Amino acid sequence: MDNELKLASNLAPFSRLSDRFVTSGYCEGYDFNKQLEMLAAIEGISGVGLGWPSQCRDGATLKKILENHGLKLATLDADIYTEARFKNGSFSNRNPKIRCAALERAKETIDAAIEAGSPDINLWLGHDGFDYLFQGHYVDAWNWILEGLQELAEYNPNMPISIEPKCREPRANEYVANTGKLLMLVNRINKPHVGITLDFGHSLAALENPAECAVFAMREGRLQQVHLNDNYRDWDHDLIPGSVSVWEQVEFFYWLHRLGYDGWFCIDIYPYRDDGAEVLERAVQACHKSWQVANRLIEMNIEQLLRDGQHLKIKRILWDMVKV
Amino acid sequence: MDNELKLASNLAPFSRLSDRFVTSGYCEGYDFNKQLEMLAAIEGISGVGLGWPSQCRDGATLKKILENHGLKLATLDADIYTEARFKNGSFSNRNPKIRCAALERAKETIDAAIEAGSPDINLWLGHDGFDYLFQGHYVDAWNWILEGLQELAEYNPNMPISIEPKCREPRANEYVANTGKLLMLVNRINKPHVGITLDFGHSLAALENPAECAVFAMREGRLQQVHLNDNYRDWDHDLIPGSVSVWEQVEFFYWLHRLGYDGWFCIDIYPYRDDGAEVLERAVQACHKSWQVANRLIEMNIEQLLRDGQHLKIKRILWDMVKV
Amino acid sequence: MDNELKLASNLAPFSRLSDRFVTSGYCEGYDFNKQLEMLAAIEGISGVGLGWPSQCRDGATLKKILENHGLKLATLDADIYTEARFKNGSFSNRNPKIRCAALERAKETIDAAIEAGSPDINLWLGHDGFDYLFQGHYVDAWNWILEGLQELAEYNPNMPISIEPKCREPRANEYVANTGKLLMLVNRINKPHVGITLDFGHSLAALENPAECAVFAMREGRLQQVHLNDNYRDWDHDLIPGSVSVWEQVEFFYWLHRLGYDGWFCIDIYPYRDDGAEVLERAVQACHKSWQVANRLIEMNIEQLLRDGQHLKIKRILWDMVKV
Amino acid sequence: MDNELKLASNLAPFSRLSDRFVTSGYCEGYDFNKQLEMLAAIEGISGVGLGWPSQCRDGATLKKILENHGLKLATLDADIYTEARFKNGSFSNRNPKIRCAALERAKETIDAAIEAGSPDINLWLGHDGFDYLFQGHYVDAWNWILEGLQELAEYNPNMPISIEPKCREPRANEYVANTGKLLMLVNRINKPHVGITLDFGHSLAALENPAECAVFAMREGRLQQVHLNDNYRDWDHDLIPGSVSVWEQVEFFYWLHRLGYDGWFCIDIYPYRDDGAEVLERAVQACHKSWQVANRLIEMNIEQLLRDGQHLKIKRILWDMVKV
Repeated sequence: MDNELKLASNLAPFSRLSDRFVTSGYCEGYDFNKQLEMLAAIEGISGVGLGWPSQCRDGATLKKILENHGLKLATLDADIYTEARFKNGSFSNRNPKIRCAALERAKETIDAAIEAGSPDINLWLGHDGFDYLFQGHYVDAWNWILEGLQELAEYNPNMPISIEPKCREPRANEYVANTGKLLMLVNRINKPHVGITLDFGHSLAALENPAECAVFAMREGRLQQVHLNDNYRDWDHDLIPGSVSVWEQVEFFYWLHRLGYDGWFCIDIYPYRDDGAEVLERAVQACHKSWQVANRLIEMNIEQLLRDGQHLKIKRILWDMVKV
Repeated sequence: MDNELKLASNLAPFSRLSDRFVTSGYCEGYDFNKQLEMLAAIEGISGVGLGWPSQCRDGATLKKILENHGLKLATLDADIYTEARFKNGSFSNRNPKIRCAALERAKETIDAAIEAGSPDINLWLGHDGFDYLFQGHYVDAWNWILEGLQELAEYNPNMPISIEPKCREPRANEYVANTGKLLMLVNRINKPHVGITLDFGHSLAALENPAECAVFAMREGRLQQVHLNDNYRDWDHDLIPGSVSVWEQVEFFYWLHRLGYDGWFCIDIYPYRDDGAEVLERAVQACHKSWQVANRLIEMNIEQLLRDGQHLKIKRILWDMVKV
Repeated sequence: MDNELKLASNLAPFSRLSDRFVTSGYCEGYDFNKQLEMLAAIEGISGVGLGWPSQCRDGATLKKILENHGLKLATLDADIYTEARFKNGSFSNRNPKIRCAALERAKETIDAAIEAGSPDINLWLGHDGFDYLFQGHYVDAWNWILEGLQELAEYNPNMPISIEPKCREPRANEYVANTGKLLMLVNRINKPHVGITLDFGHSLAALENPAECAVFAMREGRLQQVHLNDNYRDWDHDLIPGSVSVWEQVEFFYWLHRLGYDGWFCIDIYPYRDDGAEVLERAVQACHKSWQVANRLIEMNIEQLLRDGQHLKIKRILWDMVKV
Repeated sequence: MDNELKLASNLAPFSRLSDRFVTSGYCEGYDFNKQLEMLAAIEGISGVGLGWPSQCRDGATLKKILENHGLKLATLDADIYTEARFKNGSFSNRNPKIRCAALERAKETIDAAIEAGSPDINLWLGHDGFDYLFQGHYVDAWNWILEGLQELAEYNPNMPISIEPKCREPRANEYVANTGKLLMLVNRINKPHVGITLDFGHSLAALENPAECAVFAMREGRLQQVHLNDNYRDWDHDLIPGSVSVWEQVEFFYWLHRLGYDGWFCIDIYPYRDDGAEVLERAVQACHKSWQVANRLIEMNIEQLLRDGQHLKIKRILWDMVKV
């Protein structure tokens, strides 16, 4: 079993972030090269998760740039959610031209991912959902999502497609809302290279237990990618990993490690108000500590305690590791 | 398309209800025969949902009693959750004897359901879940649930099995938590007579939209049974249908009717503090009104508005039906 | 008792709205004059809620422009939340210069409100809160908020100050989070011209019942202003009033009317994806219908039913008003 | 500053617990004397929180029995919520006889508390609220609650009254729902011996931050009593302290200690499925560890970091205390 935690991050900590109130940005942010340089300087992070299209004209260029920075590409995310044309949905859009555009964007991302050497593409259908009752035509929507994903899955079986669920934001309700619903969908597509992204914070906000979801997804052979962040189980606040959920993160790492997950852990946070580098250092610390605790639990062979339902004995072990 | 709303109810409105605070009961309740008599007296309700074992020694006796009361049996619910022996789970219990007992209970319920002429049995795994992190052994639990259900599905293909998901209560987290997760599971069992129960309130409390879930389940050919009640999207309060969620219930009925659902709508409420008969009269009124609104929307052929995403025009129609 | 519903709206329906994903805007939006013209064209809306500073150089100019459009000023909102300098808080900011800037902005808004003939200013401390545990120094924060508001309250007793609570967004946790907490604070300030804004959707998202809050605030003599919008009790989605919560809105209007609230009802929605004018027409319809139902309940003198706890009889009356 | 954590517990871990499903009890439970004996045997717990009436005929007898067991009385809780007669409310009940009965029960509890040497009585208005819209007459309800509490406050100024808020359960909505609302109420009563109980889990479930609430209540001079338990911010699951919320509990203890809270910390859990003694041992461990961490933060003088908003540096310190 691999003992290393492969940590990556997106570039949000070094970007100009805005929201619906501070539309002109919480800070200035940096240019692409500076962002990569700053990320590469963070000890403990070796990969980067990027969106496509990026500021590079092709995947080969991107690959070179990342190599220059000593960073690995952890995933390439098909951007079907930052442009206004996708505001009423991508794969489920009522307009066939927009559905087509979403599919094209995803295919381009696959091409670029191949060139850039990405292990997969990430696909989040952020605007596919509904804000109002009687707004979604659920039959059409699910048909289009399924058709689009099936066509995408045919495009290039060599590049894994990892679909990321989320229950809300930017829509009040998103179609691909949670792990169970997505696994049902992915099983229906039924291609070995189509899997899921388990975003720790999305999972919490969908009232799930992320560790249970990891097990569930791995039993189905569908866990492709992991995102790390945190929240108060109410919303995708994209806070620093381990800043709220401590035992949840340890349990998550325990099961991922136990069941042999060997992919990236991509930090996916939105630090509107804090220094990006310092935030990532804290994220790295919290992740490494949680990982070490999880490893220690494996070494201690708590498997039998788990089998016997002796959660109180595991609680004792966990709190014993808090040392003043 | 059938234009009739087949309403049933459980007997909770005429029972001694208790909770963790008022353990000796909010009221006295009535004996079984009186309960049936009181339910039969409610205009607009023609069926009853019952648990098994009941106060009848066999299904044939039950059938006769219900006929005497002029009530149809809407479902027979396998009781694997009111006895302390099931407190750590039924189908996922670590103790093979308890797993076996749960399976036996479900099989007995199938036998009784056949004798009693029930359209299906209902199966809710209420104690199968976890209150604490590191309490559930998720691999074992899901294996046992799947194995048990597969064995149950072999028992008698003539009696539909309808599994009911719920995200929490009595456990802080239940395994069979929501519609998507359950559909994935049911698809894996892959038997035509194994479907799901869509409980309107469970769906709201799991952050779902019940109408979308109905469509989703019917696309998979898995919608077997519907439960009606209401809440504030926070917990399974089992309130009177339509007392909180108005447009949600109309949308739910719209899609069920449109896609040809022809099963029972079983009112599943817990009126701790109100008169059972009056509560059911209000439930019947709210359900019939919602059903009529849904039918009217179908007659008006709003399908095209839905197709076009004209939810604002549908809103106008809905509010036009509120007449002072 | 005044029988008229005084409806106003902000200009968001005619503005370029953006969020953290679609940062360049969901649509183009219109210039200030066009926005006012479009709003004035909506039948049933007679007032506008505006932010300060606005595109007018002073309140007198603003007054004239609004008069030209036939619109009344419903409130003037002190903008202490759209600029990055306020990102770590306004009145509770650790930096005394920023606290001072927030106070100055609020005072300027009071001045402009006087000139423009506004009935009050609105004050929302959106960035005053914390995303992380151990981030807020709660003693300092509350001291500064109290001190700042006390100083502001001294500035001009002729202009009512209406403080608006919200539990989260843009911070994961806001200090002035809910009605109870704010009323405690306002009672401590103890000035007759300092009251609260009851935002229907903020109230739902804070797990409150808006009608109960209205009663609670009016008992304390502190209800100054009302905002209308809707959501799924999970987040401030700023949806169209009555699109989700039907009986809640009727109950809210019932109590406001019964207790003699005679201020504005300011529609405060964010229609990212819909036509602004059509959205407002639906909002007006839903509000007027709810208002008429509330009035009818008053005419029918349901007071005695309420006194007797006969909520089931009121339910019957409500559903009787839904006529297919 | 007192460096000791005064831990108490209620007797639920040794009682027959039931809920609405397992009405006959999750286990047998023990008699009163055995319960006290078992509690006294738990190292680290020196007090007990009891309800009144208890199995002792008067407070003096109770005092003697507790002394025999070497236990201190941490609080005496007025039972106005386990009898069916209170199901529609205690202090806000529409029936003046029931309001009177609630008041009598509270006065008897005060008498017994004096005799038994309790530091305070606890008062939770569990059934005072509403399940349905248009069910509560909010004006009457708040008037009666205020009147009743005012009369109670006159009864015996020597015995502190500690009122405990909760947002829901057993009612879908409770009147005395959260810390802010209660503080407003208590300030209106305005007696030095009337304060509040801060239940950690109730606070989480009401979307509050317990540490902030503690500061808020202590600023008002109103924090009388603290209850410890845990949940997933969704419901009052009454789980073992520290089983979900780690940093929250540390932060809570930090501020309580810093501001000089010297009362009891009463563990208030409902371990339906686990061994009561083992559960309490884990609770004691988690509380002591959290307390030590909080003390260590005080020794390290993180006050300046808090003042400066350096939450990232505090995060580093916290994670450094997790040692594998």
